[in-house]
Amino acid sequence: MTRKDIAGAATLAEARRLRADRARQVADVLRRQVLYGEFRSGELPPESDLAREFGASRNAIREALDLLRAEGLIERCPGVGTFVVAEKYPHGLERLLGLAETLREHGEVENEVRTTGLIAPSREVASRLRRPPGEPVVYIERIRRINGLPLSLDLTYIARDLGEPLLAEDLARNDIFVLLERIAGQRLGKAEVTIEAVNADPHSAAILDAPRGTALLMLERLTHLADGRPVDLEFVRFRGDRIAMSGTLHRVHP
Amino acid sequence: MTRKDIAGAATLAEARRLRADRARQVADVLRRQVLYGEFRSGELPPESDLAREFGASRNAIREALDLLRAEGLIERCPGVGTFVVAEKYPHGLERLLGLAETLREHGEVENEVRTTGLIAPSREVASRLRRPPGEPVVYIERIRRINGLPLSLDLTYIARDLGEPLLAEDLARNDIFVLLERIAGQRLGKAEVTIEAVNADPHSAAILDAPRGTALLMLERLTHLADGRPVDLEFVRFRGDRIAMSGTLHRVHP
Repeated sequence: MTRKDIAGAATLAEARRLRADRARQVADVLRRQVLYGEFRSGELPPESDLAREFGASRNAIREALDLLRAEGLIERCPGVGTFVVAEKYPHGLERLLGLAETLREHGEVENEVRTTGLIAPSREVASRLRRPPGEPVVYIERIRRINGLPLSLDLTYIARDLGEPLLAEDLARNDIFVLLERIAGQRLGKAEVTIEAVNADPHSAAILDAPRGTALLMLERLTHLADGRPVDLEFVRFRGDRIAMSGTLHRVHP
Repeated sequence: MTRKDIAGAATLAEARRLRADRARQVADVLRRQVLYGEFRSGELPPESDLAREFGASRNAIREALDLLRAEGLIERCPGVGTFVVAEKYPHGLERLLGLAETLREHGEVENEVRTTGLIAPSREVASRLRRPPGEPVVYIERIRRINGLPLSLDLTYIARDLGEPLLAEDLARNDIFVLLERIAGQRLGKAEVTIEAVNADPHSAAILDAPRGTALLMLERLTHLADGRPVDLEFVRFRGDRIAMSGTLHRVHP
């Protein structure tokens, strides 16, 4: 390799890097426009318009569109155009709501109940629900779908006194939150949540009808009654391509 | 295949499914215990103890530990034991804080500034920052590390009047939030955030020193000054294996 070849290669690598950086910038801005329905017709502007709008090369625009296609947000039909195919639903981070409550305007949530029953909880689960060791808790496992599309796999542990009456209810068509409030005769209060991104293991991916390794938004949520008693511990795997969580944070001085 | 073979195969598949379900339940509870430092010595209990604790088979426990190993939370040394190796940091969802502020107790945040400069924003970026079309904005791209480990890749757009003085500051060692408040002479107010899980494209994965396709926690955040003016639009890719976001939600009746 001559000195000139090496310099050429470095420049090529550098050019690729710059194009990838540019593509990421464009993709992030377009992602939001796609999600918030800015392209009302469902069709994105032609590449040349996007290149002008973003002051980017056609190649960088194509690479940006490839990133969004890989995320399942758009589909490109050569010679026809680029179309929004996202089935991504907004989930509020402001208020504690059940899924059907949250997605009311977006369609009907159906729950496929995979498992229900009394189980002997591990110490960790008993202690978080503030139940004595050895007392059984109710376990419910559901696949949740909106408009027929799998959205999440929910593992739920509920204190026995509320969980047993819950099992007599229609879990396929109702949020547990709504049923719990009716059974407890009081409203829910607060919930502590933790949100993580994890790659789906093969079995969870299959249940959610998603590719192996797909990014999941993993939500752990401990929900309390208004009187402060913790009653509902949930582990929810959302398909990352089907959910976006939004909220408002306020500055409080450190 | 005889009728008996088919029945046997169905039973085997069913047994596998049940074991995978059980492993997921165990992994979800253990994940939290690992993240919240419950295993103080850094070593998990032996499989036989875990099997008793969870009322699960040794095979289900092994499968649960495999799930956590795949997430990078634990490592298993055959004949020695199972150890916590997670480098996962808590990020509050309660208050609007810069990364160094949030992680103060966990180590030092260093920022590698990849790019800075004035750019012509797309209409979407200009409109979200409420700047007139054609007015340049300041763009800053940073890799953020804690204790030397890559945590996030941040793409930041800032209104020109605040962004230009910002570029004269030490961006490697300071949160933009803190610098912005000093330059603006007022505190930050609220921020609108959207959180998603996405698989890393190859280029972003390489920047974050993570495997291709790794699950990223993607944060979009529009931050306002206390007077309500939007000044800072960010797109942050967190490595999913390095961050857990936590907060409290309150029930407000629908």
